[in-house]
Amino acid sequence: MSKVQGPKSKVDEGAERIMARLAELARLSDEPEQITRTYGSPAMRCANDLVGAWMREAGMTVREDAIGNLIGCYEAARLGAKTFLLGSHLDTVRNAGAFDGPLGVILAIECVAKLNGSKTRLPFALEVIGFCDEEGVRFQTTYLGSRALAGTLTEADLQRVDENGVSLADAMRQFGGAPEKISAAQCHPNKLLGYAEVHIEQGPVLEQAHHAVGVVTAIAGQSRAKICFTGQAGHAGTTPMKVRRDALCAAAFFISVVEGHGKYDDTGLVVTVGQIHVAPGASNVIPGEAELTLDVRHQSDSRRQEAVQFLQGSAENIGRQRGIFVKWQLVQETASVPCDSELTALLKCAAQKHQSEVIELPSGAGHDAAVLGKITPAVMLFVQCRDGLSHHPDESARAEDVTVALDVMHDFLQLLAERHA
Amino acid sequence: MSKVQGPKSKVDEGAERIMARLAELARLSDEPEQITRTYGSPAMRCANDLVGAWMREAGMTVREDAIGNLIGCYEAARLGAKTFLLGSHLDTVRNAGAFDGPLGVILAIECVAKLNGSKTRLPFALEVIGFCDEEGVRFQTTYLGSRALAGTLTEADLQRVDENGVSLADAMRQFGGAPEKISAAQCHPNKLLGYAEVHIEQGPVLEQAHHAVGVVTAIAGQSRAKICFTGQAGHAGTTPMKVRRDALCAAAFFISVVEGHGKYDDTGLVVTVGQIHVAPGASNVIPGEAELTLDVRHQSDSRRQEAVQFLQGSAENIGRQRGIFVKWQLVQETASVPCDSELTALLKCAAQKHQSEVIELPSGAGHDAAVLGKITPAVMLFVQCRDGLSHHPDESARAEDVTVALDVMHDFLQLLAERHA
Repeated sequence: MSKVQGPKSKVDEGAERIMARLAELARLSDEPEQITRTYGSPAMRCANDLVGAWMREAGMTVREDAIGNLIGCYEAARLGAKTFLLGSHLDTVRNAGAFDGPLGVILAIECVAKLNGSKTRLPFALEVIGFCDEEGVRFQTTYLGSRALAGTLTEADLQRVDENGVSLADAMRQFGGAPEKISAAQCHPNKLLGYAEVHIEQGPVLEQAHHAVGVVTAIAGQSRAKICFTGQAGHAGTTPMKVRRDALCAAAFFISVVEGHGKYDDTGLVVTVGQIHVAPGASNVIPGEAELTLDVRHQSDSRRQEAVQFLQGSAENIGRQRGIFVKWQLVQETASVPCDSELTALLKCAAQKHQSEVIELPSGAGHDAAVLGKITPAVMLFVQCRDGLSHHPDESARAEDVTVALDVMHDFLQLLAERHA
Repeated sequence: MSKVQGPKSKVDEGAERIMARLAELARLSDEPEQITRTYGSPAMRCANDLVGAWMREAGMTVREDAIGNLIGCYEAARLGAKTFLLGSHLDTVRNAGAFDGPLGVILAIECVAKLNGSKTRLPFALEVIGFCDEEGVRFQTTYLGSRALAGTLTEADLQRVDENGVSLADAMRQFGGAPEKISAAQCHPNKLLGYAEVHIEQGPVLEQAHHAVGVVTAIAGQSRAKICFTGQAGHAGTTPMKVRRDALCAAAFFISVVEGHGKYDDTGLVVTVGQIHVAPGASNVIPGEAELTLDVRHQSDSRRQEAVQFLQGSAENIGRQRGIFVKWQLVQETASVPCDSELTALLKCAAQKHQSEVIELPSGAGHDAAVLGKITPAVMLFVQCRDGLSHHPDESARAEDVTVALDVMHDFLQLLAERHA
């Protein structure tokens, strides 16, 4: 599974073990010939068992919480100390790669193994968490695992059903969890020092800069809208161009405006139309309706909202000029979650020991850190991935970059220990 | 079914009978609550029986040919005279209106009834044809009926299967036809004088000009292409705008070029993108692929081909500028079929007796006349329809416009008779 490219630079033993374990974990799948691990599935059970064994081997005591998050605990130097969380998720999308999620869990275990190997205890406990659901494939809603930990899972979430009609509550029971004890999964903020997550970048920025790692400034906020253009269907052969009210032509013009608005921004705005459907949808019929999705992300909520406002105004203008009715439906709005500035400074300091230049970049993708960041200071380290690819079987990170990430996280924990000594 | 709008002007008894018969015919459907009559269906059997009875009532002898075209024959004044064909089709699209097709058949029967009522024989025989398949719904290929008559139905056509695996040959047998005798359905050109078809316009031109009828210059040629833009799928949150190769953005830009090219033409070019599909097609994934259909029509083949060439060049330029691979696949190319100039002049002359101004316009839609036009001089009269609507339950023509069409066709036959006296 691990595809190493480019000239080999320094790769240490710990990183080699991480790469080997990621490959081993990748064999645990709900589907043959591809990596798919969804919440509560047999593959997820095997993954928790395997990763749990690695946690024990690294000197941790291991438990599963009520929803099925796998938690390895490495005690602090003294009783009653607070806990620092490390982790990421063990579930995947369908036909996934081996790195998105597992890298953060396996690398965290390796950090603990190193401490345990040198019989080092920190002034705080470490908990390594393998979240049971971040991708949201089975129940069509993300972050089930981290939301259980943050205490933001609702009764409505427990009643959600998968495509076979099985509720999350029942799936929890089948997995060995206990929906009635879900509140016990909650971590109390006053017992926490913070959360750190290592994740592949899922974008091309670090690769283009030839950097092994980068420090995340924020998990970008996101607006999602569904926009429907309604004109008049008609016969493609008999309706003169000048009297047409072609919904797809209006939508196409709008898509060009969206693209232009994104391209002329230099502050990191990303705007995407990922879906479009036209009706009636026949080659010889003028489209009377075109419905598309819009995804807008930025680390600054105000910049994002300004972009959404501009694009909504543009859609309405396009509609007015063309006699097309425009329905704009805001589907979702998620605020940006800034990473904790103190922890980020510490992480950058650790990174600078191993990389001459360290860039800070926002995360356009969502991560468990976005949920944890609401209850405790959170920080993220991105690792370069090949071609910026993720959610794809070819997703890959290089062992030498994982080596750097491992060193950075080890030093980050040392710096954190010094601060809390 | 007949929806009459606007102030009533002159409506004669014949037109009233046509409207009533169209409404009666509209009740014969393969599907409840909507008009659907596909080739060889029970509704088609009932339609042929009912329309056959009306033909007999109008003084015709009635037969069905090997494929199931309904043919009523009104003998000439003398034996051995040639035959002039009148007609249109009796099949419909799914969820059709009452006028597209049947109007031309029922109106032709009314013309004959009028001749028969006054015991008038013409110097040529008249055959009124109700073609059994023009829309091509069941076997996904158009003009089965008129192609049988023109002798252009192939063995491959007979082997085509419907969605239940029934071949056209078997469907013909079940309908009472005889595939082995298909060649007998062919009309020999040297026995024909010509073909005239009355049809609703299916476009807005006559309605906007407040004309009851118009004379058709040609059935436009058509080019159909499938165009696939292939870029690079990617994460909507993590891929900066400047490195994207978004297939939908390229396709959207192309659609705007298509629209612009059509709008700035003033010679009747129509260009349509009716379908678009993107892959992967998720709101949070940059489209890696966008496939669309293009439909180009013009009465001049050279102008149409020039337009296709321009648009293909544009698509390739757009691809080059964006690092997008463009695959251009020509799916179909049909030459324009000009209406016969002498018959058209005669038809226009007849129309001018009933309408102060008579415009000539191309037909952007295909008609049986396009097939018949290859074996005999063909001519078409368009009747105004409401909102240019067709292939829709709300499709409608006004009784007063049908009155004009009936008068025009009656006078056209008189003029034709004078010419052949």
